[in-house]
Amino acid sequence: MADLISSDSSTPSPLLVVGSVAFDNVITPKAEQERILGGAASYCSFAASYYANVRMVGVVGNDFGESDLDRLRARGIDLEGIMKDESGPTFFWKGKYHENFNRRDTLDIRLNVFENFRPDLPDSYLNSEFVLLGNIHPALQMHVLDQLSGNPFVLADTIDLWIETEREALLSLIKKVSLFVINDSEAEEMTGESNIILAGDKLRQMGPQSVIIKKGEHGAVLFHEDGKFALPAYPVTQLNDPTGAGDSFAGALIGRLASRNRTDFAAIKEAMLYATCTASLTVEAFGCDRLESAGKSEIEERVSTLQKLISVA
Amino acid sequence: MADLISSDSSTPSPLLVVGSVAFDNVITPKAEQERILGGAASYCSFAASYYANVRMVGVVGNDFGESDLDRLRARGIDLEGIMKDESGPTFFWKGKYHENFNRRDTLDIRLNVFENFRPDLPDSYLNSEFVLLGNIHPALQMHVLDQLSGNPFVLADTIDLWIETEREALLSLIKKVSLFVINDSEAEEMTGESNIILAGDKLRQMGPQSVIIKKGEHGAVLFHEDGKFALPAYPVTQLNDPTGAGDSFAGALIGRLASRNRTDFAAIKEAMLYATCTASLTVEAFGCDRLESAGKSEIEERVSTLQKLISVA
Repeated sequence: MADLISSDSSTPSPLLVVGSVAFDNVITPKAEQERILGGAASYCSFAASYYANVRMVGVVGNDFGESDLDRLRARGIDLEGIMKDESGPTFFWKGKYHENFNRRDTLDIRLNVFENFRPDLPDSYLNSEFVLLGNIHPALQMHVLDQLSGNPFVLADTIDLWIETEREALLSLIKKVSLFVINDSEAEEMTGESNIILAGDKLRQMGPQSVIIKKGEHGAVLFHEDGKFALPAYPVTQLNDPTGAGDSFAGALIGRLASRNRTDFAAIKEAMLYATCTASLTVEAFGCDRLESAGKSEIEERVSTLQKLISVA
Repeated sequence: MADLISSDSSTPSPLLVVGSVAFDNVITPKAEQERILGGAASYCSFAASYYANVRMVGVVGNDFGESDLDRLRARGIDLEGIMKDESGPTFFWKGKYHENFNRRDTLDIRLNVFENFRPDLPDSYLNSEFVLLGNIHPALQMHVLDQLSGNPFVLADTIDLWIETEREALLSLIKKVSLFVINDSEAEEMTGESNIILAGDKLRQMGPQSVIIKKGEHGAVLFHEDGKFALPAYPVTQLNDPTGAGDSFAGALIGRLASRNRTDFAAIKEAMLYATCTASLTVEAFGCDRLESAGKSEIEERVSTLQKLISVA
């Protein structure tokens, strides 16, 4: 069990994380690296592992070794939900970032064993009270929800691909979601509204209890029935690989909520601070390297820095 | 005398404002309007007039009428420093905003009487303890500083034109500036640094005591010897004309400082809230119309909304 960031709750809830597991080749303006452990589920789980007991669901292929699994185990992540499919290799993505990291091109994508992934949950996961639906097909996200008992707090993420190709399935899904997390360009794509405030209000009208719109280096805005909250990003000066920043944000966010066993407006705002700081680590190195090695004291230091940065008094 | 927003100081200081006075024709994706009273000095002065006793310095031409002057007088603005040059018309600018207002093209610009403008201060202005150097040629900004007695708190603004054509004069000027206010693209142009945190640190090393980098709809960041402060923008949903937003921000910012007679880190942070909210009014209508008509209670309401928006607790 990894050492967790302390919270005010004596009864932290376990957190179910579902998403892709991948090997990535990433090219940035500064460097490139191959066979990086990635995918939404990996980033989400590593980030959440600082806060909660993570139950991870995903599929890996015949090229996924014990050493890769050991990296996740070392952070206390429960891997009962990771299926090893020996019929082929792990999901593979190769991408290249442009100057200033503000855009990227996909150079190669091979679904491999991920093509037939169907997230059937182990029995021991069915009672999860906190659920992170990382980016996968919205019908698969719905399939996860259908298996769960009780009334879990559900955070869902998505990408432009599903907004374009699976809009109806996505609209059905977000009606069942507690907290829908999306970036600014995707919010505009879903609502047709370029003003972020109006876009957030419209997204909430589509069904999710709350919405967070992420603006990358410009921070994030929460839309909640009790009000709005705007948070600047952590002041990163060593940007090396933006891959997984959004997944790390989502993982830390719901991880923090699970660790406090709270989901009210104030708790979500507080969790956004931890999420922003955790994601700021991710982008400072390729893959999950910084996330894995940082340690909880580094996150707590950044939260303290961010609190000062946004404090008027 | 216009009704001022209350402050905690019993000795508000008068504020000197220098800049262009213009008539603008503005075309936006939604509408267009002609002969709008504009220019940096107008926006700065209207915005500052909610907080401080403004002494305005500029030049107007033979087409500038008593009704235009009356608009400024109605806000309590001292016009002793406004010179009327009968030899030609007032500075004229015509511009067109693109879709989403994120870029604009200058369609026509006529300097007219502004071409020979030399800001010689009336004697009664020489003791000003707060000075706003709105966007004009940096040599003229320096000429204003050279006339002032004492050790005033000086806020300077600039534009990309002077960064490109008058870099040396600008570098000399900002060494004498208390607070240098600049937008993100200009900050990158001046420092060669695209990371806003590094750009702000570099700008401070160039001489000004403090720096604010404005990011439009994404807010602003203060760089001060006592720390940094990041503030989101006021959540505007009725964007109609961005012209003058930066000038209004600067005017309200130093106006608020003058009204409290304070220039410390906490005071600048507090003034940024007022500046953001005052500028949010400007963009909701063409020209200074909203600024003029809003009233202090509307600004105070927005400050309260913004405080809630950024409050973690």
